[in-house]
Amino acid sequence: MQRYFLFFQYKGSRYHGWQIQPNAQSVQSEMENALGILFQKKVPLVAAGRTDTGVHAKLMVAHFDSDDKIVNKNFIFKLNNLLPKDISIKGLSLVKPDFHARFDAISRTYEYHLSFVKHPFLEDLYCKISAPLDFNKMNEAAKKLIGKRDFSCFSKTHTQTFTNDCEITKAEWFQKDDLWVFEIRANRFLRNMVRAIVGTLIEVGQGKRDVNSMEALIASKNRSSAGPSMSANGLFLTEIEYPKEGFLD
Amino acid sequence: MQRYFLFFQYKGSRYHGWQIQPNAQSVQSEMENALGILFQKKVPLVAAGRTDTGVHAKLMVAHFDSDDKIVNKNFIFKLNNLLPKDISIKGLSLVKPDFHARFDAISRTYEYHLSFVKHPFLEDLYCKISAPLDFNKMNEAAKKLIGKRDFSCFSKTHTQTFTNDCEITKAEWFQKDDLWVFEIRANRFLRNMVRAIVGTLIEVGQGKRDVNSMEALIASKNRSSAGPSMSANGLFLTEIEYPKEGFLD
Repeated sequence: MQRYFLFFQYKGSRYHGWQIQPNAQSVQSEMENALGILFQKKVPLVAAGRTDTGVHAKLMVAHFDSDDKIVNKNFIFKLNNLLPKDISIKGLSLVKPDFHARFDAISRTYEYHLSFVKHPFLEDLYCKISAPLDFNKMNEAAKKLIGKRDFSCFSKTHTQTFTNDCEITKAEWFQKDDLWVFEIRANRFLRNMVRAIVGTLIEVGQGKRDVNSMEALIASKNRSSAGPSMSANGLFLTEIEYPKEGFLD
Repeated sequence: MQRYFLFFQYKGSRYHGWQIQPNAQSVQSEMENALGILFQKKVPLVAAGRTDTGVHAKLMVAHFDSDDKIVNKNFIFKLNNLLPKDISIKGLSLVKPDFHARFDAISRTYEYHLSFVKHPFLEDLYCKISAPLDFNKMNEAAKKLIGKRDFSCFSKTHTQTFTNDCEITKAEWFQKDDLWVFEIRANRFLRNMVRAIVGTLIEVGQGKRDVNSMEALIASKNRSSAGPSMSANGLFLTEIEYPKEGFLD
């Protein structure tokens, strides 16, 4: 049995997130349906993580196992023809049989896109917000997120995980054309964490929250002390880092 | 009475083109509705031209007349708030009272966007096509369009215009990221002309039509001798040129 990593992107607007759910469209179900047609049997996908309803992925990774000879150069082409317009396979890699899309990921990177102006060609791909925002202050506050901490204050309540510790290695706002982009990288993220962080930093940028209040907020471990969760529209999973040793091609 | 030029962009997918039509959504009706709310009376818009169902505009121009004081710095902001997400006002200029958005336009520029790969974030904003295409040959054929000619061969039949002469000053394919873009500029365009030209050039790129057949095709004035009309998805109005003397600010 050989294991493959699939690299793909999707616009999340039509989907109830990545994961298969009863009575709802998901990216995973679309992809497993397409794989089922190609392989003539069920081929489960294991993704690097989940994305919520409406969240996009510029790059997502999932693994599957197969010994079928159809996993060749035409495989991506065939798979793309079976998939809807809002899901696109970008690459395929043969990996070690025990290499795991979720457990071997070193880090995940997300972007959040804000704009003060309307973008008719980016519908559902950014969050519109009223000017002005003090991005210098928002970057100062973002720096205070760097490090390994219990980030319960940004986590959706009632989520069961063995730990709420995450190590954030990058958190930065920058301008890209007419958009303001927040880029954040961590070994792992809690449910809803990026959108809650963005909502909190926006309150800093609006002058509603002090840069120096971030320490106390994190220490509180209290979700209700943080800012609101921003809309899924603006959120993109952009990168997943793996150790090179896992790849066989 | 003062005359203003409005500069705006729209994603055409939801609209039956620019022009107001009975029982159909149009960009013009959305904009005149919004202007009606602001001015508390009907304010007609005269656009530089029409775009067909599904065609987009990176930049469209229309004029209106008003003596109302609300046409000030906040006007664009207010108008954008009244308009849907897929229409965005980009600018406003005071012009001479007899300056006309349609009749004073010197040239119009369109782009057509093709792609061999899927773009989940550009849904309805490009035309997907099978590789390969010989873009060198397509550019050779495009050069043969330059000049003032009767372009009836690319015009939707049964269109009544006083003349089918157009002067094409630019016609060129180039690559932009993962897209192939055809840019074409002329003093005026006939109905459906760009999409028929693109369909014809694609047949050249596929080897179905000879580069040197363009002369005879134009001379034929016969629409059925040209290639198919390409989908509206890929077409963008991108620029309208005016004499500077018309602008008062």
